[in-house]
Amino acid sequence: MTSDERHASAPAVPPPAGPQRPAIARTRRHGDLLATSGQTAVGAGGELIASGRLGDQIDLETGRRCAWQCAANVLEAIRSELGSLEQVAEVVKLTVFVASAPGFIEQHLVADAATAYVQHVLGAEAGLHARSAVGVAELPTGSPVEVEALVRVR
Amino acid sequence: MTSDERHASAPAVPPPAGPQRPAIARTRRHGDLLATSGQTAVGAGGELIASGRLGDQIDLETGRRCAWQCAANVLEAIRSELGSLEQVAEVVKLTVFVASAPGFIEQHLVADAATAYVQHVLGAEAGLHARSAVGVAELPTGSPVEVEALVRVR
Amino acid sequence: MTSDERHASAPAVPPPAGPQRPAIARTRRHGDLLATSGQTAVGAGGELIASGRLGDQIDLETGRRCAWQCAANVLEAIRSELGSLEQVAEVVKLTVFVASAPGFIEQHLVADAATAYVQHVLGAEAGLHARSAVGVAELPTGSPVEVEALVRVR
Repeated sequence: MTSDERHASAPAVPPPAGPQRPAIARTRRHGDLLATSGQTAVGAGGELIASGRLGDQIDLETGRRCAWQCAANVLEAIRSELGSLEQVAEVVKLTVFVASAPGFIEQHLVADAATAYVQHVLGAEAGLHARSAVGVAELPTGSPVEVEALVRVR
Repeated sequence: MTSDERHASAPAVPPPAGPQRPAIARTRRHGDLLATSGQTAVGAGGELIASGRLGDQIDLETGRRCAWQCAANVLEAIRSELGSLEQVAEVVKLTVFVASAPGFIEQHLVADAATAYVQHVLGAEAGLHARSAVGVAELPTGSPVEVEALVRVR
Repeated sequence: MTSDERHASAPAVPPPAGPQRPAIARTRRHGDLLATSGQTAVGAGGELIASGRLGDQIDLETGRRCAWQCAANVLEAIRSELGSLEQVAEVVKLTVFVASAPGFIEQHLVADAATAYVQHVLGAEAGLHARSAVGVAELPTGSPVEVEALVRVR
């Protein structure tokens, strides 16, 4: 059966959500371009380091700590794919999603901590990037921040 | 007149919205990289199959049905551009926007249905992808979910 | 010290936010692909031309004016990088984030003004693009709209 046939004959309703979640790649490469999955503020212990929205339960300093952690998780995903971060030629784009209560408009200051992590590790040149910072309603499992990257590989 | 001249002399205000909306491409190619427009949960009849936000009017099962439909629409946009989904070498990235009421934090479970569709049709290898799932405030025309993709073409 | 060593030994907490914000690139190139930072609705005077959310303080016409301005800022970022917009072969993707109060579901009509700007300046062919329009909670400094682009350079 071809993919076109499976597409044409797919049921209208997804299979029920099971205990087994579908596999997602942490990173995916296209030539020398590497895209990462969005990374939430999960710490070394496997739990979120904080939970909630900026401008609500989460203050700016905690939000910045989460963005720093998300950026560390993005680089860790890349490192584990490439073997070494020395393989990163440059960060092309960082997108920083900030869970924001109505009235919180300092997404750029939260995102600065993700930028700071990337530039701390990769240096000013390879770590320089285009960036979008947006305030979203909620993020998976209650993460205050989610960060994704597009990087160029050597 | 060059594009620089049109840019320099553009009025500060857009032309009034007319009955004719500007043309948007469903997909756009850059070499072997194909980007799709965000696809909402429009069904075969041309209408949304549901409308509203997760955690509000829309429950998880309905949200997953919408994500499944959005993913079908993404692959249909790609199929209609390439002639066949057999031309898809791999899905690089899927971004799943979930309209979310405050407190709804299961965007990843909604997004799993989009992932499941892509992997059902394209298989485990070509269908493996990096993914971001985020909870947004609202989506065009009230769609509960919007999905966009970046794929590599053979 | 290598980037891997800096990554492994990074503190868990970001440096305090200083008066000096980290540098962000307005655009970043990867071969002939150029990504821009998200551009807010800042006018010629360096201030936002409006502030707030669609469906709340901001009506559709003001939102469209903001989207038009954001698109002008996106093309200005590209022009200042490339020297001339004549270097743009085509716009691959435009993403339009619209700060949206609950119930506002006309993000696509707001985004049409960004599309209209790009097509006004670059023409129907080079200006044709894939697009996602999403309604977010809030945007940096209160901008009603933020626009980012991916373009192919000649």
